[in-house]
Amino acid sequence: MPPKMNLTVRAATIEDCALIHHFTTSLAEFEHALDKVEATVASFQQTLFGPHPYAHVLFACDNGTAVGMALYFFNYSTWKGRPGLYLEDLVIAPEYRSRGVGTMLMSHVARVAVEKGCGRMEWAALDWNTPAIDFYVHKVKARQMSEWVGFRLENETLTDFAALASASASST
Amino acid sequence: MPPKMNLTVRAATIEDCALIHHFTTSLAEFEHALDKVEATVASFQQTLFGPHPYAHVLFACDNGTAVGMALYFFNYSTWKGRPGLYLEDLVIAPEYRSRGVGTMLMSHVARVAVEKGCGRMEWAALDWNTPAIDFYVHKVKARQMSEWVGFRLENETLTDFAALASASASST
Repeated sequence: MPPKMNLTVRAATIEDCALIHHFTTSLAEFEHALDKVEATVASFQQTLFGPHPYAHVLFACDNGTAVGMALYFFNYSTWKGRPGLYLEDLVIAPEYRSRGVGTMLMSHVARVAVEKGCGRMEWAALDWNTPAIDFYVHKVKARQMSEWVGFRLENETLTDFAALASASASST
Repeated sequence: MPPKMNLTVRAATIEDCALIHHFTTSLAEFEHALDKVEATVASFQQTLFGPHPYAHVLFACDNGTAVGMALYFFNYSTWKGRPGLYLEDLVIAPEYRSRGVGTMLMSHVARVAVEKGCGRMEWAALDWNTPAIDFYVHKVKARQMSEWVGFRLENETLTDFAALASASASST
Protein backbone atom coordinates (compact mmCIF):
# COMPACT_ATOMS: atom_id res chain seq x y z
CA MET A 1 0.00 0.00 0.00
CA PRO A 2 1.44 3.41 -0.91
CA PRO A 3 2.25 5.73 2.01
CA LYS A 4 -0.41 8.22 3.09
CA MET A 5 -0.33 11.37 1.00
CA ASN A 6 -0.03 14.88 2.41
CA LEU A 7 -1.67 16.84 -0.41
CA THR A 8 -1.65 20.59 -0.90
CA VAL A 9 -2.38 22.84 -3.87
CA ARG A 10 -0.33 25.85 -4.87
CA ALA A 11 -0.23 28.33 -7.75
CA ALA A 12 2.79 28.17 -10.08
CA THR A 13 5.34 30.99 -10.23
CA ILE A 14 7.79 31.92 -12.97
CA GLU A 15 10.38 29.68 -11.28
CA ASP A 16 8.17 26.67 -12.09
CA CYS A 17 8.39 26.87 -15.89
CA ALA A 18 10.75 23.88 -16.18
CA LEU A 19 8.24 21.89 -14.11
CA ILE A 20 5.38 23.05 -16.35
CA HIS A 21 7.42 21.92 -19.34
CA HIS A 22 8.03 18.54 -17.72
CA PHE A 23 4.29 17.95 -17.10
CA THR A 24 3.46 19.18 -20.60
CA THR A 25 5.79 16.70 -22.32
CA SER A 26 4.58 13.84 -20.11
CA LEU A 27 0.95 14.60 -21.11
CA ALA A 28 1.96 14.86 -24.77
CA GLU A 29 3.59 11.45 -24.52
CA PHE A 30 0.37 9.98 -23.07
CA GLU A 31 -1.67 11.57 -25.90
CA HIS A 32 0.77 10.31 -28.59
CA ALA A 33 1.59 13.91 -29.49
CA LEU A 34 5.16 14.39 -28.32
CA ASP A 35 6.14 15.63 -31.81
CA LYS A 36 3.61 18.47 -31.45
CA VAL A 37 5.26 20.09 -28.42
CA GLU A 38 6.81 23.37 -29.55
CA ALA A 39 6.66 24.99 -26.10
CA THR A 40 9.90 25.79 -24.27
CA VAL A 41 10.65 26.94 -20.74
CA ALA A 42 11.17 30.44 -22.17
CA SER A 43 7.82 30.45 -24.02
CA PHE A 44 6.03 29.49 -20.79
CA GLN A 45 7.87 32.26 -18.92
CA GLN A 46 6.77 34.79 -21.53
CA THR A 47 3.14 33.73 -22.07
CA LEU A 48 2.19 32.63 -18.52
CA PHE A 49 4.17 35.15 -16.44
CA GLY A 50 4.77 38.08 -18.81
CA PRO A 51 2.78 41.33 -19.04
CA HIS A 52 -0.29 39.42 -20.34
CA PRO A 53 -0.64 36.01 -18.63
CA TYR A 54 -2.75 33.95 -21.06
CA ALA A 55 -3.28 31.02 -18.68
CA HIS A 56 -2.80 30.00 -15.04
CA VAL A 57 -1.27 26.90 -13.46
CA LEU A 58 -1.99 25.07 -10.19
CA PHE A 59 0.11 22.21 -8.84
CA ALA A 60 -1.01 19.37 -6.60
CA CYS A 61 1.85 18.57 -4.21
CA ASP A 62 2.52 15.56 -2.00
CA ASN A 63 4.71 16.60 0.93
CA GLY A 64 5.68 19.66 -1.10
CA THR A 65 6.65 17.83 -4.32
CA ALA A 66 4.51 18.59 -7.39
CA VAL A 67 2.72 15.44 -8.52
CA GLY A 68 -0.02 16.98 -10.69
CA MET A 69 -0.64 20.07 -12.80
CA ALA A 70 -3.77 21.90 -13.96
CA LEU A 71 -3.54 24.64 -16.60
CA TYR A 72 -6.63 26.82 -17.15
CA PHE A 73 -7.70 30.12 -18.71
CA PHE A 74 -10.82 32.24 -18.74
CA ASN A 75 -13.14 31.91 -21.71
CA TYR A 76 -16.43 33.76 -22.20
CA SER A 77 -20.09 32.86 -22.39
CA THR A 78 -22.09 35.30 -24.48
CA TRP A 79 -25.34 33.75 -23.22
CA LYS A 80 -24.29 34.45 -19.64
CA GLY A 81 -22.52 37.74 -20.36
CA ARG A 82 -19.65 36.69 -18.13
CA PRO A 83 -16.44 34.67 -18.13
CA GLY A 84 -16.14 30.92 -17.82
CA LEU A 85 -13.17 28.80 -16.88
CA TYR A 86 -11.59 26.38 -19.35
CA LEU A 87 -9.37 23.61 -18.02
CA GLU A 88 -6.90 23.04 -20.86
CA ASP A 89 -4.71 20.41 -19.21
CA LEU A 90 -4.83 18.12 -16.21
CA VAL A 91 -1.75 15.93 -15.72
CA ILE A 92 -1.07 13.56 -12.83
CA ALA A 93 2.26 11.77 -12.35
CA PRO A 94 1.74 8.06 -13.29
CA GLU A 95 2.44 6.72 -9.78
CA TYR A 96 -0.19 9.10 -8.35
CA ARG A 97 -3.07 8.22 -10.72
CA SER A 98 -6.28 6.66 -9.35
CA ARG A 99 -5.52 7.98 -5.87
CA GLY A 100 -7.83 11.00 -5.85
CA VAL A 101 -5.21 13.58 -6.83
CA GLY A 102 -7.01 14.48 -10.08
CA THR A 103 -10.36 14.94 -8.33
CA MET A 104 -8.73 17.07 -5.65
CA LEU A 105 -6.89 19.26 -8.16
CA MET A 106 -9.93 19.61 -10.45
CA SER A 107 -12.13 20.59 -7.52
CA HIS A 108 -9.64 23.35 -6.66
CA VAL A 109 -9.90 24.61 -10.25
CA ALA A 110 -13.71 24.52 -9.88
CA ARG A 111 -13.32 26.59 -6.72
CA VAL A 112 -11.33 29.20 -8.66
CA ALA A 113 -14.20 29.27 -11.21
CA VAL A 114 -16.77 29.88 -8.46
CA GLU A 115 -14.61 32.49 -6.70
CA LYS A 116 -14.04 34.39 -9.96
CA GLY A 117 -17.77 34.45 -10.72
CA CYS A 118 -17.51 32.16 -13.74
CA GLY A 119 -20.77 30.91 -15.22
CA ARG A 120 -19.33 27.52 -16.08
CA MET A 121 -16.25 25.32 -16.21
CA GLU A 122 -15.42 23.39 -19.36
CA TRP A 123 -12.80 21.00 -20.71
CA ALA A 124 -12.38 18.28 -23.34
CA ALA A 125 -11.11 14.72 -23.51
CA LEU A 126 -9.94 12.55 -26.41
CA ASP A 127 -12.73 10.19 -27.45
CA TRP A 128 -10.58 7.05 -26.94
CA ASN A 129 -9.76 8.03 -23.35
CA THR A 130 -12.72 6.15 -21.87
CA PRO A 131 -11.40 6.02 -18.26
CA ALA A 132 -11.25 9.85 -18.29
CA ILE A 133 -14.69 10.18 -19.91
CA ASP A 134 -16.27 7.78 -17.37
CA PHE A 135 -14.63 9.72 -14.57
CA TYR A 136 -15.92 13.09 -15.86
CA VAL A 137 -19.47 11.83 -16.39
CA HIS A 138 -19.95 9.62 -13.35
CA LYS A 139 -17.67 11.06 -10.69
CA VAL A 140 -17.45 14.76 -11.64
CA LYS A 141 -21.10 14.74 -12.89
CA ALA A 142 -20.20 16.86 -15.92
CA ARG A 143 -22.48 17.19 -18.93
CA GLN A 144 -21.08 15.78 -22.17
CA MET A 145 -21.35 18.44 -24.89
CA SER A 146 -21.70 15.99 -27.75
CA GLU A 147 -23.86 18.29 -29.91
CA TRP A 148 -20.89 20.58 -30.65
CA VAL A 149 -18.31 20.04 -33.39
CA GLY A 150 -14.95 21.78 -33.03
CA PHE A 151 -12.95 23.38 -35.83
CA ARG A 152 -9.36 24.56 -36.05
CA LEU A 153 -7.18 26.64 -38.36
CA GLU A 154 -3.41 26.58 -37.85
CA ASN A 155 -0.19 27.16 -39.76
CA GLU A 156 -0.90 27.76 -43.49
CA THR A 157 -4.67 27.33 -43.21
CA LEU A 158 -4.70 30.16 -40.65
CA THR A 159 -2.40 32.56 -42.51
CA ASP A 160 -4.09 31.85 -45.87
CA PHE A 161 -7.52 32.61 -44.42
CA ALA A 162 -6.23 35.71 -42.60
CA ALA A 163 -4.88 37.01 -45.91
CA LEU A 164 -8.47 37.25 -47.20
CA ALA A 165 -9.05 40.07 -44.70
CA SER A 166 -6.78 42.47 -46.54
CA ALA A 167 -8.43 41.62 -49.87
CA SER A 168 -12.05 41.81 -48.76
CA ALA A 169 -12.66 45.04 -46.87
CA SER A 170 -10.87 47.91 -45.28
CA SER A 171 -10.64 47.85 -41.53
CA THR A 172 -11.43 51.11 -39.79
CA MET B 1 -30.50 42.04 -56.70
CA PRO B 2 -29.49 43.63 -53.38
CA PRO B 3 -27.58 46.93 -53.62
CA LYS B 4 -23.78 46.75 -53.63
CA MET B 5 -22.38 46.57 -50.12
CA ASN B 6 -19.79 48.93 -48.71
CA LEU B 7 -18.28 46.71 -46.02
CA THR B 8 -15.94 47.77 -43.26
CA VAL B 9 -14.88 46.16 -39.98
CA ARG B 10 -14.56 47.98 -36.66
CA ALA B 11 -13.87 47.07 -33.05
CA ALA B 12 -16.75 47.52 -30.57
CA THR B 13 -16.62 50.16 -27.83
CA ILE B 14 -18.51 50.35 -24.54
CA GLU B 15 -21.20 52.37 -26.34
CA ASP B 16 -21.99 49.26 -28.44
CA CYS B 17 -23.21 47.01 -25.60
CA ALA B 18 -26.88 47.33 -26.59
CA LEU B 19 -25.88 46.29 -30.12
CA ILE B 20 -23.88 43.33 -28.73
CA HIS B 21 -26.97 42.34 -26.74
CA HIS B 22 -29.11 42.57 -29.87
CA PHE B 23 -26.82 40.27 -31.88
CA THR B 24 -26.55 37.88 -28.91
CA THR B 25 -30.32 37.43 -28.61
CA SER B 26 -30.71 37.02 -32.38
CA LEU B 27 -28.10 34.21 -32.36
CA ALA B 28 -29.76 32.61 -29.33
CA GLU B 29 -33.05 32.64 -31.22
CA PHE B 30 -31.42 30.90 -34.19
CA GLU B 31 -29.90 28.27 -31.85
CA HIS B 32 -33.23 27.70 -30.05
CA ALA B 33 -31.66 28.95 -26.81
CA LEU B 34 -33.35 32.28 -26.15
CA ASP B 35 -34.28 31.13 -22.63
CA LYS B 36 -30.57 30.68 -21.87
CA VAL B 37 -29.63 34.34 -22.37
CA GLU B 38 -28.85 35.83 -18.96
CA ALA B 39 -26.55 38.56 -20.34
CA THR B 40 -27.61 42.20 -20.04
CA VAL B 41 -26.23 45.42 -21.49
CA ALA B 42 -24.69 46.09 -18.05
CA SER B 43 -23.01 42.66 -17.86
CA PHE B 44 -21.43 43.22 -21.29
CA GLN B 45 -20.21 46.66 -20.19
CA GLN B 46 -18.61 45.15 -17.10
CA THR B 47 -17.06 41.99 -18.58
CA LEU B 48 -16.03 43.26 -22.04
CA PHE B 49 -15.01 46.84 -21.21
CA GLY B 50 -14.21 46.75 -17.48
CA PRO B 51 -10.77 46.47 -15.85
CA HIS B 52 -10.38 42.89 -17.17
CA PRO B 53 -11.90 42.51 -20.67
CA TYR B 54 -12.64 38.78 -21.00
CA ALA B 55 -13.48 38.91 -24.72
CA HIS B 56 -13.34 41.22 -27.75
CA VAL B 57 -15.93 42.16 -30.36
CA LEU B 58 -15.64 43.13 -34.03
CA PHE B 59 -18.54 44.38 -36.16
CA ALA B 60 -18.97 44.05 -39.91
CA CYS B 61 -20.68 47.22 -41.15
CA ASP B 62 -22.44 48.02 -44.42
CA ASN B 63 -22.29 51.75 -45.05
CA GLY B 64 -21.53 52.21 -41.37
CA THR B 65 -24.42 50.09 -40.03
CA ALA B 66 -23.44 46.95 -38.08
CA VAL B 67 -24.73 43.86 -39.94
CA GLY B 68 -22.53 41.20 -38.31
CA MET B 69 -20.72 40.53 -35.06
CA ALA B 70 -17.76 38.34 -34.06
CA LEU B 71 -16.91 37.78 -30.38
CA TYR B 72 -13.57 36.15 -29.57
CA PHE B 73 -11.13 35.62 -26.69
CA PHE B 74 -7.62 34.27 -26.29
CA ASN B 75 -7.24 30.68 -25.20
CA TYR B 76 -3.95 28.81 -24.70
CA SER B 77 -2.14 25.92 -26.33
CA THR B 78 0.17 24.11 -23.93
CA TRP B 79 1.72 22.18 -26.85
CA LYS B 80 2.62 25.47 -28.54
CA GLY B 81 3.39 27.39 -25.33
CA ARG B 82 1.48 30.37 -26.64
CA PRO B 83 -2.03 31.79 -26.92
CA GLY B 84 -4.62 30.84 -29.48
CA LEU B 85 -7.76 32.66 -30.57
CA TYR B 86 -11.21 31.22 -29.92
CA LEU B 87 -14.14 32.58 -31.93
CA GLU B 88 -17.07 32.18 -29.55
CA ASP B 89 -19.79 33.77 -31.72
CA LEU B 90 -20.30 34.80 -35.30
CA VAL B 91 -23.66 36.37 -36.07
CA ILE B 92 -24.78 37.85 -39.40
CA ALA B 93 -28.08 39.75 -39.82
CA PRO B 94 -30.51 37.46 -41.76
CA GLU B 95 -30.76 39.69 -44.83
CA TYR B 96 -26.94 39.74 -45.09
CA ARG B 97 -26.36 35.98 -44.96
CA SER B 98 -24.80 34.15 -47.95
CA ARG B 99 -23.34 37.39 -49.24
CA GLY B 100 -19.75 36.97 -48.03
CA VAL B 101 -20.10 39.01 -44.84
CA GLY B 102 -19.32 36.02 -42.60
CA THR B 103 -16.21 35.08 -44.57
CA MET B 104 -15.03 38.68 -44.51
CA LEU B 105 -15.59 39.07 -40.76
CA MET B 106 -14.05 35.69 -39.93
CA SER B 107 -10.99 36.47 -42.02
CA HIS B 108 -10.53 39.68 -40.03
CA VAL B 109 -10.65 37.64 -36.82
CA ALA B 110 -8.03 35.30 -38.34
CA ARG B 111 -5.91 38.36 -39.07
CA VAL B 112 -6.10 39.37 -35.39
CA ALA B 113 -4.94 35.83 -34.51
CA VAL B 114 -1.94 36.12 -36.83
CA GLU B 115 -1.08 39.65 -35.66
CA LYS B 116 -1.22 38.61 -31.98
CA GLY B 117 1.09 35.64 -32.62
CA CYS B 118 -1.59 33.01 -31.93
CA GLY B 119 -0.69 29.43 -32.77
CA ARG B 120 -4.20 28.60 -33.92
CA MET B 121 -7.79 29.78 -34.27
CA GLU B 122 -10.65 27.59 -33.08
CA TRP B 123 -14.44 27.59 -32.86
CA ALA B 124 -17.38 25.19 -32.68
CA ALA B 125 -20.68 24.64 -34.47
CA LEU B 126 -23.83 22.77 -33.50
CA ASP B 127 -23.86 19.37 -35.21
CA TRP B 128 -27.24 19.99 -36.91
CA ASN B 129 -26.01 23.24 -38.50
CA THR B 130 -24.79 21.54 -41.69
CA PRO B 131 -24.62 24.72 -43.83
CA ALA B 132 -22.17 26.19 -41.27
CA ILE B 133 -20.15 22.95 -41.05
CA ASP B 134 -19.89 22.68 -44.87
CA PHE B 135 -18.80 26.31 -45.00
CA TYR B 136 -16.09 25.81 -42.35
CA VAL B 137 -14.72 22.65 -43.93
CA HIS B 138 -14.91 23.50 -47.64
CA LYS B 139 -14.62 27.29 -47.78
CA VAL B 140 -12.60 28.15 -44.66
CA LYS B 141 -10.56 24.88 -44.99
CA ALA B 142 -10.71 24.26 -41.23
CA ARG B 143 -9.94 20.90 -39.69
CA GLN B 144 -12.85 19.23 -37.90
CA MET B 145 -11.75 18.24 -34.39
CA SER B 146 -14.06 15.25 -34.10
CA GLU B 147 -11.75 13.25 -31.79
CA TRP B 148 -12.46 15.60 -28.87
CA VAL B 149 -15.44 15.34 -26.52
CA GLY B 150 -16.42 18.46 -24.55
CA PHE B 151 -17.58 18.55 -20.93
CA ARG B 152 -19.27 21.24 -18.87
CA LEU B 153 -20.09 21.94 -15.23
CA GLU B 154 -22.49 24.76 -14.44
CA ASN B 155 -24.85 25.92 -11.71
CA GLU B 156 -25.20 23.25 -8.97
CA THR B 157 -22.87 20.74 -10.65
CA LEU B 158 -20.12 23.40 -10.57
CA THR B 159 -20.66 24.59 -7.00
CA ASP B 160 -21.07 21.03 -5.70
CA PHE B 161 -17.81 19.95 -7.28
CA ALA B 162 -16.00 23.11 -6.09
CA ALA B 163 -17.11 22.33 -2.54
CA LEU B 164 -14.95 19.19 -2.62
CA ALA B 165 -11.87 21.45 -2.71
CA SER B 166 -12.39 22.64 0.84
CA ALA B 167 -12.87 19.10 2.07
CA SER B 168 -9.95 17.46 0.28
CA ALA B 169 -6.80 19.51 0.90
CA SER B 170 -5.62 22.82 2.19
CA SER B 171 -4.64 25.38 -0.41
CA THR B 172 -1.39 27.19 0.24
